[in-house]
Amino acid sequence: MEYMRQALELAEEALSVSHPNPPVGAVVVKDGKVAGRGHTMHIGGAHAEVVAIAEAGDLAAGATLYTTLEPCCHVGRTPPCTDLIINSGIREVSIATIDPNPKVNGKGIHILKGAGLTVHLGDGEEESLQVAEGYMKLMSTGLPFVIAKFAMSLDGKIALSSGESKWITSRESRDYVGLMRSQVGAVVAGIGTVLEDNPRLTARDFEGNEFPTQPLKLIVDSNARTPLDAALFDGGGEVVVATCGASALREKALVNRGVRLIKTDPKGDMVDLDVLLSQLGKMGVNSILVEGGETLLGSFADMRLIDKVVVFIAPVIIGGSGSPSPIGGVGVKVMEDIIRLERSQLKMFGEDIMVTGYMG
Amino acid sequence: MEYMRQALELAEEALSVSHPNPPVGAVVVKDGKVAGRGHTMHIGGAHAEVVAIAEAGDLAAGATLYTTLEPCCHVGRTPPCTDLIINSGIREVSIATIDPNPKVNGKGIHILKGAGLTVHLGDGEEESLQVAEGYMKLMSTGLPFVIAKFAMSLDGKIALSSGESKWITSRESRDYVGLMRSQVGAVVAGIGTVLEDNPRLTARDFEGNEFPTQPLKLIVDSNARTPLDAALFDGGGEVVVATCGASALREKALVNRGVRLIKTDPKGDMVDLDVLLSQLGKMGVNSILVEGGETLLGSFADMRLIDKVVVFIAPVIIGGSGSPSPIGGVGVKVMEDIIRLERSQLKMFGEDIMVTGYMG
Repeated sequence: MEYMRQALELAEEALSVSHPNPPVGAVVVKDGKVAGRGHTMHIGGAHAEVVAIAEAGDLAAGATLYTTLEPCCHVGRTPPCTDLIINSGIREVSIATIDPNPKVNGKGIHILKGAGLTVHLGDGEEESLQVAEGYMKLMSTGLPFVIAKFAMSLDGKIALSSGESKWITSRESRDYVGLMRSQVGAVVAGIGTVLEDNPRLTARDFEGNEFPTQPLKLIVDSNARTPLDAALFDGGGEVVVATCGASALREKALVNRGVRLIKTDPKGDMVDLDVLLSQLGKMGVNSILVEGGETLLGSFADMRLIDKVVVFIAPVIIGGSGSPSPIGGVGVKVMEDIIRLERSQLKMFGEDIMVTGYMG
Repeated sequence: MEYMRQALELAEEALSVSHPNPPVGAVVVKDGKVAGRGHTMHIGGAHAEVVAIAEAGDLAAGATLYTTLEPCCHVGRTPPCTDLIINSGIREVSIATIDPNPKVNGKGIHILKGAGLTVHLGDGEEESLQVAEGYMKLMSTGLPFVIAKFAMSLDGKIALSSGESKWITSRESRDYVGLMRSQVGAVVAGIGTVLEDNPRLTARDFEGNEFPTQPLKLIVDSNARTPLDAALFDGGGEVVVATCGASALREKALVNRGVRLIKTDPKGDMVDLDVLLSQLGKMGVNSILVEGGETLLGSFADMRLIDKVVVFIAPVIIGGSGSPSPIGGVGVKVMEDIIRLERSQLKMFGEDIMVTGYMG
């Protein structure tokens, strides 16, 4: 597990650059020493195995490769990794989990075995499935993995009654949100949040610099009210607006501003989130970070579309029956429908507590 | 600090029995060995020093006494501890902190020194002040220490939109609340909570048995609507109802049921909480646990009457704009008024997170 652990760490590093490709880490080990390490690069760039084998050079001959995902065996944006592995002289391959992509899905392993390599499967599988949870969900369902994120006070408020919400959480929490954004295909907010807070929604590192690869900035905006001078348009990342009842004029204005539109039939008077998710899936978006506000998160929760929850809790008290709460909508009506999170975990960011968990 | 640490642990044990006396722990040490240990017993019972010295017996002669609070020097419900200490032959006394009670307040130390004993002051002071925070506040202000307690989901709801709130938190959290109740002079709830949840509000140990000493059960109930068959009337603990606009008939019915009434002028249409707290102080209640609901906690928060917050967060999602939130009222209006908790701490109870902190 020691070398696979290193490969998993590399896979996690890949998260910020690999989308829409799966985040994969690979390590080449020769005579008990690490000879090469790599992770998936940006789209069109090298896969993890390619980087690791290139670093190993001649040492690859007779070596063992540890990789967090089954190597690809098809020509995609890059040539098949299986060919490279076989040609490099690697003798043994340990694979954490099978690639559910129908173009791979066991065929990679079959090819390696056919070429006489020894293949082990399953070491580190659980961890690999978690790192690549977005890719795995898209491959198995055609829909992106949905992460609901919010930040609240210790009394469950996301803003003052005036709507002001800036600086409730610590610098450390906000920095981490910048990193989380880099790890998804799209950051999603409601039009209310855009009009109220005017966020940029960019993925930034801890020094405040934008990541080279930016997620889509998706605004759920039934009537296409997104202002053409919104802060969203600054910095990297394509702006996408999902609407269901916009005027042709507004649509045209947004398109002229460079916005990609996603149109759905109205559901109630809201964008149809089921249709939106399947559109995003077709665009290759494997994970989205829904950052609220209350109405949008309420709709996602009511429709049971959330896969994972990430909550930052600041040790502050706001109070007020008029102060907004993180998740609106209809809510759970009877106690047996209450959603208990699974695999919940705690982490501190400055004085804030971050709680993550998966929807049961 | 080692022996003082043991005394502090005893003081903490005293919390469940000592009210309205201060929770004190004492250890008698002779020749590097603990010869006697004690903590404050129930009202009218022995003080910590008495128990420890009795246990030490003849070994007290020439020994050192460690106590978390200055020994009393007046005749209260029991004779002065200073006399007993001097007569026991103890030579040296280490005291964590001075007793701010005007009848003591340094006089105990003066008497011990006058009798030729060596006295050290200040070891473990901070911890002792915290264990006895209720007593300390009552002595210094005449008002009880106010602890606001609530339990909520990870999305900041204290109940479903139907009002149902049972079993959101874990068994472990609820057990701990039973212990917390035993450590205060009164448990406080709003009439809404009584009508909605019909709680017993008793202090119970982890096996579900009632503590021998029960806190007052105080209902803030402007119009005295508390039902005469409420579960409050079961089990131990005197029921107190605070009203401001009750009919003579309702008042009489409650008094006949054994209720103690506290009447204030109405403030808005609510019981005047300032007056209520000063009444409780006069009754010797040194700490109260306010268990909600939203309206009552909102009033306490708006009036800045809360000293400490204890929040249980369950890893569940409820959602719903109609689901109640822990703290109602007006709330903080501008960001510079936001209340940042000090000395905040985390503890797990089952899968729940308990966060405690002091109001800045």
